[in-house]
Amino acid sequence: MVSTQSPADLQAIAREARMRARNGQLSSPTPGLSPGIVQGNVAILPRDWADDFLRFCHLNQKPCPLLTVSRPGEYRLNELGDDIDIRTDVPMYRVFRDGQLIEEVPDIRHLWQDDFVAFVLGCSFSFEEALVSAGLPLRHLQRNTDVAMYRTNIQTTPSGPFSGPMVVSMRPFKPADAIRAIQITSRFPRVHGAPVHFGDPAQIGIRDIDQPDWGDPALIQPGETPVFWACGVTPQSVIEYAKPPICITHKPGRMLITDRLNADYAAI
Amino acid sequence: MVSTQSPADLQAIAREARMRARNGQLSSPTPGLSPGIVQGNVAILPRDWADDFLRFCHLNQKPCPLLTVSRPGEYRLNELGDDIDIRTDVPMYRVFRDGQLIEEVPDIRHLWQDDFVAFVLGCSFSFEEALVSAGLPLRHLQRNTDVAMYRTNIQTTPSGPFSGPMVVSMRPFKPADAIRAIQITSRFPRVHGAPVHFGDPAQIGIRDIDQPDWGDPALIQPGETPVFWACGVTPQSVIEYAKPPICITHKPGRMLITDRLNADYAAI
Repeated sequence: MVSTQSPADLQAIAREARMRARNGQLSSPTPGLSPGIVQGNVAILPRDWADDFLRFCHLNQKPCPLLTVSRPGEYRLNELGDDIDIRTDVPMYRVFRDGQLIEEVPDIRHLWQDDFVAFVLGCSFSFEEALVSAGLPLRHLQRNTDVAMYRTNIQTTPSGPFSGPMVVSMRPFKPADAIRAIQITSRFPRVHGAPVHFGDPAQIGIRDIDQPDWGDPALIQPGETPVFWACGVTPQSVIEYAKPPICITHKPGRMLITDRLNADYAAI
Repeated sequence: MVSTQSPADLQAIAREARMRARNGQLSSPTPGLSPGIVQGNVAILPRDWADDFLRFCHLNQKPCPLLTVSRPGEYRLNELGDDIDIRTDVPMYRVFRDGQLIEEVPDIRHLWQDDFVAFVLGCSFSFEEALVSAGLPLRHLQRNTDVAMYRTNIQTTPSGPFSGPMVVSMRPFKPADAIRAIQITSRFPRVHGAPVHFGDPAQIGIRDIDQPDWGDPALIQPGETPVFWACGVTPQSVIEYAKPPICITHKPGRMLITDRLNADYAAI
């Protein structure tokens, strides 16, 4: 139980998992490996592209809640953890060249460039932990599947080469639970915050709720309504579309485990 | 504009309206007469009934958010305003005997009993002001009608003779506005707080959304969802059903105007 462990205990568990990622001993999905601790989406871009992407994050904070950004060439991310090395500490990386996935590697020291800028963005795992702690059942966790994600007709605000539709994740709730979920996730603006929509999927351009664009269908039950949150797949989708000469991201589900507490990111 | 007036200015406007009510010069509905200031639902019961009703309020805080309760025989309500006299300051009273409406009077000094206990409950006008200030359109205000209210199948928690279904008010919103409305009203637990339901009316026992039990239909437009809040008609309905030998309430829409600022009741 999270509630019986001190921040130092939680950080020790997180550091142990990060060490395993660093040493190439952890390539499995990270949810559940660091209770109470922030995990982050990672994107690494050359400096020429990074300024526009940083502006894109500021203009689209719900899908792209920036936790930190490095200076060019800097691979230490002290704001998120004393010893973090973004070249080694993600369990599995994806390397894209001109928007094409080239390879998955557990370490990018051999690919590192002096002009690389690392972005770490907040992730829904943080607010999902708050929802579960509040007794709100999450269907995809109960069924041990991925959350359902959809491309929408909600356009992001463009910045340079970065533009495109917002991607959302969907979790079904009974209305009273949805109201509680809106309250709880509103406390966490740095990890996507409140939902962007609920109810009729067609209103945000989703044609078939049973056919997610990423992840697994969610099996909405009678009396439940789908609730949609801005999703961290948005920046990945936008970067792939922009086709930078090189971009490195985490492999979905294999996140950067930080030293920061989810509780520290609660706005209220 | 509320935002350009100091608390003292707002309280001066409210006191002037309360003085007119006291002097029998105000019998019209009070919404709009005291910007920024809390207006309250009023119920007055004999002591023998008041203890159970006080407990009912504590057990059902969403429909019955208690702002203050007097000691038996006390007609000053200093907690809500220095000079308030609950026998004269409501614009129009309704007198019920054995659950039957007997008369409407502008003053109850001639009816006052030494065992009377006065209850003042929070009212949705406070959160409606917050919604309008946030730029969220309220259909019933735009159309100058009463809000639509419905008896539900949500049962209140009984206390002695007081029991019965929760009454809700309904306001239609587009989903993104509904999410914002949930956030805003969550800040005001003393004036009904967050909604209790949205979407399918049948889930809370409402058969025909176009036929409210009180107030006027709301004309839900395409793309909007009905959002339901616990309503201050609940305690009035419960008291009528319990049939105390005497009970005095405000006439709907003619509320007690206090000295308290809506802003003071924001939880966060």
